Amino acid sequence: MFSQSDFVHMERALALAQRGLYTTDPNPRVGCVLVRDGVVIGEGYTQPAGQDHAEIQAMKDARTRGHELRGATAYVTLEPCSHFGRTPPCANALIEAKVARVIAAMEDPNPLVSGRGLAILRDAGIDVRCGLLASEARELNIGFVSRMTRKRPWVRMKVAASLDGRTGLPSGESQWITGEAARADGHAWRARASAILTGIGTVKEDDPRMTVRAVNTPRQPKRVLIDSRLDASPLAQIFVGAPTLVFCAALDESNAERAEALRARGAELVALGNEHGKVDLPAMLGELAERGVNELHVEAGYKLNGSLLREGCVDELLVYVAPSLLGTSSLGMIDIAAPATLEGRTRLAFHSVDRLGNDLRILARVVTAQDA
Amino acid sequence: MFSQSDFVHMERALALAQRGLYTTDPNPRVGCVLVRDGVVIGEGYTQPAGQDHAEIQAMKDARTRGHELRGATAYVTLEPCSHFGRTPPCANALIEAKVARVIAAMEDPNPLVSGRGLAILRDAGIDVRCGLLASEARELNIGFVSRMTRKRPWVRMKVAASLDGRTGLPSGESQWITGEAARADGHAWRARASAILTGIGTVKEDDPRMTVRAVNTPRQPKRVLIDSRLDASPLAQIFVGAPTLVFCAALDESNAERAEALRARGAELVALGNEHGKVDLPAMLGELAERGVNELHVEAGYKLNGSLLREGCVDELLVYVAPSLLGTSSLGMIDIAAPATLEGRTRLAFHSVDRLGNDLRILARVVTAQDA
Repeated sequence: MFSQSDFVHMERALALAQRGLYTTDPNPRVGCVLVRDGVVIGEGYTQPAGQDHAEIQAMKDARTRGHELRGATAYVTLEPCSHFGRTPPCANALIEAKVARVIAAMEDPNPLVSGRGLAILRDAGIDVRCGLLASEARELNIGFVSRMTRKRPWVRMKVAASLDGRTGLPSGESQWITGEAARADGHAWRARASAILTGIGTVKEDDPRMTVRAVNTPRQPKRVLIDSRLDASPLAQIFVGAPTLVFCAALDESNAERAEALRARGAELVALGNEHGKVDLPAMLGELAERGVNELHVEAGYKLNGSLLREGCVDELLVYVAPSLLGTSSLGMIDIAAPATLEGRTRLAFHSVDRLGNDLRILARVVTAQDA
Repeated sequence: MFSQSDFVHMERALALAQRGLYTTDPNPRVGCVLVRDGVVIGEGYTQPAGQDHAEIQAMKDARTRGHELRGATAYVTLEPCSHFGRTPPCANALIEAKVARVIAAMEDPNPLVSGRGLAILRDAGIDVRCGLLASEARELNIGFVSRMTRKRPWVRMKVAASLDGRTGLPSGESQWITGEAARADGHAWRARASAILTGIGTVKEDDPRMTVRAVNTPRQPKRVLIDSRLDASPLAQIFVGAPTLVFCAALDESNAERAEALRARGAELVALGNEHGKVDLPAMLGELAERGVNELHVEAGYKLNGSLLREGCVDELLVYVAPSLLGTSSLGMIDIAAPATLEGRTRLAFHSVDRLGNDLRILARVVTAQDA
């Protein structure tokens, strides 16, 4: 169905899409390659929100280089949009340019619009095919797909642990378990996320900034803090810079003063409590999705990690494994109880394993009952 | 110093040596390739102890195929032996065959004989070079090198754990954490070991046979049990078949009856106690080395694993990581205490990481103060 050159051009389009990894948020990362008579005449990828989509960029590129678009083939990593958002629909622009073929890696994951862009193109007489390198395209926008189809972000929980699964000493000492390469890589994962989430425990113990520093990015992810009782000090580093979103269990007279002090630091407070007086974590994911969060990067402690996992709020674990053993009494990765039988264990699937300096990086996905 | 064809022939010699992985014990695994005028005329690898060494096999092979040995080059993965053991020295046989060159991957690791075989060859006018693919050759005989240079086996500790570093549920349930491929691979590592060691805790809980079953091997490793107080039941599976070696803290009137019952099951008992009434583990390694154990494969429980590691008796960890989480209250891998500071952690170096079915296999070496 697809030729060797189709694969080559779509791989190029995926590589272009990758360039938007840190910047397209909340839009998906999309790449586009325009080919005529076997020659690449234009390339583009999604610009920051409100600016050109990949298809428009590629058409501008082709025109700038003096190429005729009529009769060209457009390779796009995602179905061209069919609606007026912050920009006019790309499907219309492709029709006006009189391209002959459109090859898309995947349909728009939004079930409300899925396939409509392709249908518009087909109705205009364009030869349209879909599904080339679909799983690669899906991976690239795993968060956008999650938000569109599940109304929640893709939640990636980062943990750095020793080979015996410990994240720090009983004293709390945990800095520098892993090496430089792993730390830089961790910042790259932060950079691609829409938001970075942590908990009050981590803020109290480590006072992290939760910003991207080790890699270059023009965009800082939104910072999100779970602080059920509003215990955070207004002086905490997490409030320095852009406004931080704080989820608490309730906002009332009892914490009005603390709330005011945090607001004075720029924090936006959202009360979303459950019956235990804690933040309702699934509801929080829904709220974040409504705010356009595609990938949520979690860097929290043992307890919040456990709560998120127990409440089904984790999609994958990003585990940096250091070449060391920290011993039985050291801190565990995730506060979850042992199941009654092995049958009840939390099942994962290893997605990738890589060496980073002296450390390992393991990406493991949570297997839900639906997957199995 | 070495040509491209030298590399090719030595790689072939290493591949031949690999064929003796399960069988040469306690001898090293050695491969030999004979080349004349650029043509491979003979190949061989070490046969079971008392039978032909690699060089003799290769020379017989060449003669059987009607080749003249005079002027040939011998590629050997280990310095040819110079002493009369169970077989006459290979160095002499190479001299008598009038080979022109000998290229060895590494010297004999025994400091008492190291280089003597090469010297005899040089004295006979043969062009001798050493060091081609030395580290590959050393890996292949890591246990033999350890026994020769350190008077102790190379100790490989096998653990199967979840991603959060747990080996079983609080109930003790631990079977089938990892999958079929990992279990078969574990048996291949058993098969290459001279001996398999376990502890009384594992025998009581799991009653394992500790034999090689999932891979074909003509030789079963020696089984070794650490049972300080001779608590093992004579009916335990580990006593079925070939005699098992049991280390205890003492043999006296208090346990004479139990000792007799185990001897009746074919067990050989060795008393080697330390001041705590436990088996002296470093002394046990010395004893095993004296008995010709090159690679010692450990499959024990949390406690014995901890004792071995604390007493400096572990060289590498063979960890199968299953794609699951077992939770905080589940059993840990190794009973060691947390260090006072991170500086005091047990340091490892990842040697290899591979995927086996749905699991991971991590080979991590213990970094000692000397290494660092």
